[in-house]
Amino acid sequence: MVNEHQHTCSASSSSKSDGSSSGSESSKDSSRCSTPVLDADRHERLREKMRRRQDSGDKWFSLEFFPPRTANAAVNLISRFDRMGAGGPLFIDVTWHPAGDPGSDKETSSMIIANTAVNYCGLETILHMTCCNQTKDEITGHLQKAKRLGLKNIMALRGDPIGEEWEEEVDGFNYAVDLVKHIRNEFDDYFDICVAGYPKGHPEAESYEADLRHLKEKVLAGADFIITQLFFRSETFLKFMKDCQAIGITCPIIPGIFPIQGYHSLRQLVKLSKLEVPQEIKDVIEPIKDNDAAIRNYGVELAVSMCRELLDSGMVHGVHFYTLNREVATTEVLKRLGLWTEDPRRPLPWAVSAHPKRRVEDVRPIFWASRPKSYIYRTQEWDDFPNGRWGNSSSPAFGELKDYYLFYLKSKSPREELLKMWGEELTGEESVFEVFTCYITGEPNKNGHKVTCMPWNDDPLATETNLLKEQLEKVNRRGILTINSQPNINGKPSTDPIVGWGPSGGYVFQKAYLEFFASSEIVTALLKVLKKYELRVNYHIVNVKGQNITNAPDLQPNAVTWGIFPGREIIQPTVVDPVSFLFWKDEAFALWIEQWGKLYEEESPSRMIIQYIHDNYYLVNLVDNDFPLENCLWQVVDDTFELLN
Amino acid sequence: MVNEHQHTCSASSSSKSDGSSSGSESSKDSSRCSTPVLDADRHERLREKMRRRQDSGDKWFSLEFFPPRTANAAVNLISRFDRMGAGGPLFIDVTWHPAGDPGSDKETSSMIIANTAVNYCGLETILHMTCCNQTKDEITGHLQKAKRLGLKNIMALRGDPIGEEWEEEVDGFNYAVDLVKHIRNEFDDYFDICVAGYPKGHPEAESYEADLRHLKEKVLAGADFIITQLFFRSETFLKFMKDCQAIGITCPIIPGIFPIQGYHSLRQLVKLSKLEVPQEIKDVIEPIKDNDAAIRNYGVELAVSMCRELLDSGMVHGVHFYTLNREVATTEVLKRLGLWTEDPRRPLPWAVSAHPKRRVEDVRPIFWASRPKSYIYRTQEWDDFPNGRWGNSSSPAFGELKDYYLFYLKSKSPREELLKMWGEELTGEESVFEVFTCYITGEPNKNGHKVTCMPWNDDPLATETNLLKEQLEKVNRRGILTINSQPNINGKPSTDPIVGWGPSGGYVFQKAYLEFFASSEIVTALLKVLKKYELRVNYHIVNVKGQNITNAPDLQPNAVTWGIFPGREIIQPTVVDPVSFLFWKDEAFALWIEQWGKLYEEESPSRMIIQYIHDNYYLVNLVDNDFPLENCLWQVVDDTFELLN
Repeated sequence: MVNEHQHTCSASSSSKSDGSSSGSESSKDSSRCSTPVLDADRHERLREKMRRRQDSGDKWFSLEFFPPRTANAAVNLISRFDRMGAGGPLFIDVTWHPAGDPGSDKETSSMIIANTAVNYCGLETILHMTCCNQTKDEITGHLQKAKRLGLKNIMALRGDPIGEEWEEEVDGFNYAVDLVKHIRNEFDDYFDICVAGYPKGHPEAESYEADLRHLKEKVLAGADFIITQLFFRSETFLKFMKDCQAIGITCPIIPGIFPIQGYHSLRQLVKLSKLEVPQEIKDVIEPIKDNDAAIRNYGVELAVSMCRELLDSGMVHGVHFYTLNREVATTEVLKRLGLWTEDPRRPLPWAVSAHPKRRVEDVRPIFWASRPKSYIYRTQEWDDFPNGRWGNSSSPAFGELKDYYLFYLKSKSPREELLKMWGEELTGEESVFEVFTCYITGEPNKNGHKVTCMPWNDDPLATETNLLKEQLEKVNRRGILTINSQPNINGKPSTDPIVGWGPSGGYVFQKAYLEFFASSEIVTALLKVLKKYELRVNYHIVNVKGQNITNAPDLQPNAVTWGIFPGREIIQPTVVDPVSFLFWKDEAFALWIEQWGKLYEEESPSRMIIQYIHDNYYLVNLVDNDFPLENCLWQVVDDTFELLN
Repeated sequence: MVNEHQHTCSASSSSKSDGSSSGSESSKDSSRCSTPVLDADRHERLREKMRRRQDSGDKWFSLEFFPPRTANAAVNLISRFDRMGAGGPLFIDVTWHPAGDPGSDKETSSMIIANTAVNYCGLETILHMTCCNQTKDEITGHLQKAKRLGLKNIMALRGDPIGEEWEEEVDGFNYAVDLVKHIRNEFDDYFDICVAGYPKGHPEAESYEADLRHLKEKVLAGADFIITQLFFRSETFLKFMKDCQAIGITCPIIPGIFPIQGYHSLRQLVKLSKLEVPQEIKDVIEPIKDNDAAIRNYGVELAVSMCRELLDSGMVHGVHFYTLNREVATTEVLKRLGLWTEDPRRPLPWAVSAHPKRRVEDVRPIFWASRPKSYIYRTQEWDDFPNGRWGNSSSPAFGELKDYYLFYLKSKSPREELLKMWGEELTGEESVFEVFTCYITGEPNKNGHKVTCMPWNDDPLATETNLLKEQLEKVNRRGILTINSQPNINGKPSTDPIVGWGPSGGYVFQKAYLEFFASSEIVTALLKVLKKYELRVNYHIVNVKGQNITNAPDLQPNAVTWGIFPGREIIQPTVVDPVSFLFWKDEAFALWIEQWGKLYEEESPSRMIIQYIHDNYYLVNLVDNDFPLENCLWQVVDDTFELLN
């Protein structure tokens, strides 16, 4: 019925079901409209995002990484994803490392690193895949797994044949084009497909022209865009691009940029890619080959000027960086180009995942606020994610903690560093109180080390928590060991640099929240005090055995963060959910032992102190429902201490 | 996993799925906890509500009605349901009228009247059903239909046999107990079943004792509670109740109260029920039999003192009133007993339906704010109702308006009255403006008649709209013909007598909203003005042909009313939904013709004026998204008029 109506305005659409495709509109501003709060980005395919950015004249960049060799290196790489992701890459890609069991479940495999980038870091990600020396079934298996993990983009490559004399296999995958065809045959339009272009022609191609024809075949077979091999002069790329266009290649062609970062890495790459370094570059580099800083500076200069030429040509809309898993040079180039844009605006108060099945997710329990990767990990098996409302009847089946060792749940810091921060030797519960206090204040501990992380929070204190610093310090000193808190907010602009989130023009709100461990003595006093606040404060108090004391009505979640935006429904991204709290409790208590206690020898006094706290303390959360009034939770805690005195 | 936890507090529960049964808690206060905002009432079965009220010592009443004979009488009865429903009956019941085709789709049938009470008036309703002279299939058909319509309670009766000499049919329904068994066999525990008790014994029973045994059989067969036939002395009921208990009847027994309202109705009822009026009552009534007011006063006195005796006995928790479809006497008795409790608190800003499939419904488009019955009617075929969020992708299939004549969409006022209010003869668009203005101001029109309803609103102006009266008057005078509006509210207590709703302790919010008809000249100026307010005001402007102009992002709904409550998720009961607006538009434009235009002769000047407006005006809605600031919509309208000058 609605379909019969005429519409005179492009911003409106004739049927509700059209809404899902509306993210492809051209203006940059409209990208914030298609889902309740989040960027259209989350709903669009990579090729659509690329087209939208091109249409709006909004230049972009992307970053290439290779899988790490060790688990520790993987932890570091993931931190790098988070840091470099903050600069706003359109996508990252992860190379396929045939010798490293790339499709396996190893924490260092190409597949798992790409999975982590998408699911845990929320990055649009392309997984490379090579086809030579593999059977169709193997390839299909890899692709099915990639799809299952939420990967949506494949870079289809031939890969380097193994053995000296490579011969075409009948019915096998001999060229990247075979892989492109296979993906389209088996997975229809599910994946966005990228293929490689060679600005100087593939070293094994009969000729430059023959290579262009091969490239066109790959595009005709279904590739969506092209990323080129590295090159050293912008003219090389621009000529290549014109030649491509001349034979009818119309899809986006993205130049691959390699900022020279050192003499040896350059030599190795050149050897692998069979490229020749132009004489003018050799002339500069040879004299400074032992001065890493000088070479890097030169590399940055070179990359910046080449990128400028490319972007100024009007033919290039995005640039792709071969990072070699390094951060400094690429970041420097991007900053100098003005492409590095750290957007302080968050679509939601927590880090979103890029897995397609989580695209509608917009509500999470507050408990995992500092451990979003753990939350994503423990909910990875869910088929549906809360949207609009957490709900009363959804039964949250959180993953168990047996996979505790999993690398992305581990601390970034090595054992020695943790011992320095949290104490080589504990002398009593008070030494634990001191660690908490130092983490809050940022002051060094008595051995002169700053406490920059805690078992429940692998990063320094959030800016928002800083607002509560003074009160937090006071209570931690006295054994109210806080692990999560937020101030009340009564309608600040959504663009507020500290507490803002979501599209501009809105207002954000919060109920004050405080979560802490405390001894049973404190909890007994607290419960007496809470009687006075019965109608105002909701509480959940639980020990490791699951003894649970609460005044929450039934099993209802309490929304503690919400936002009101122009032309949208209400968003309430964090709730205090009584049921999830009992799952979080398991994790929160386990972290005492797994991250802290196990630093010490079994049976050692330090270990036993942690064990005592684990066995006897309670985990408490408090919500002050009266968000327009002054936060009463500090008064609750003060009253508790007064009662104890 | 959570199930392993111990719990020390009764308010918490071990698994989320337990939530659904939590409404049966005994304290009255907890009744507001089980679903996001609404009373547990909405989720509980009638027998559970009864038990909860009994446990909490909270006395209640219920009301019996019979189906009307004519469609007009039905419209009046439904208004009475709304008015008497405001006093807070635990339930109403509708008698089964075998001669009136009681199970049919006629607007006067028992089935449809009960359906209306549940779905459109939101009342817990018992449908009577008699079984004698009916086949099993007929009965099953009625019950299936009742279930489909959302009825959950049946009063199982034998009914009066047709014909002089009644004989038991083999395998037929001979007694109410057969019907009770049949309902339990065929519908398991779906229905709550009520049966009739006879304090003096059924007139056809062999003896009082035999009748008590029959009653016990009905209870054993599955009846949940008993409502008694009327009686004239409280001792009669109390003795009956003790006798029931003595033979092991433990279910609730509710006394049926008949306030004597007139001489003739008393005589008729006595004849039908074969009861004898006690001499002391006859002695009072006979001398005043022609004085209706005196008899009614006496009846009220009598009913009040009898109810007091019953309630004071401690054995009676609720009283059931035979209203004879009259309002005054019963309301008077209830008020004097202190049982009539008009709760100004609303669970949601709009009138909820009691259909079980709508129990989670908590979001509606604002457009039907003054026509909730029409909204319920047009969405009656929906399988799911919006809960928590209206959503982007739900495709609302609104019922068409072909059933326009349907009695509960019609005005309560007869044609002559409407003509007096809206004008016997219109002389131009200005006379229409005047009608709108008089409706807003409450002043009489030029012929001295107050305009107490409009085609879009069958009731006088809402208290909330009164807040905007001055501005509304001004704009209506100039041809901005308002049909819906609300002020902005930035966090008033949920107990606010005018704009409050939901449980206490919360805060309610609104975005300012204005909806009106206006000429294309005004709309042209308005659109120019709106450019200045582009980021602040969302608008939808549509004409009868469906030409639609909007600046709303995609097809997203805009939440315009929401509430924040202790320990709960956010509730946002009204939205401006762009898709629903186009369905509402059809209704809003059609009301011009159906309710107003058709009052006049075809081709008459008055009719043509209405037709002109219908064909040429636009329907406009405006939302000011900046709810914490002063409402800018009046400024928008002022700017528009200024531009026109």
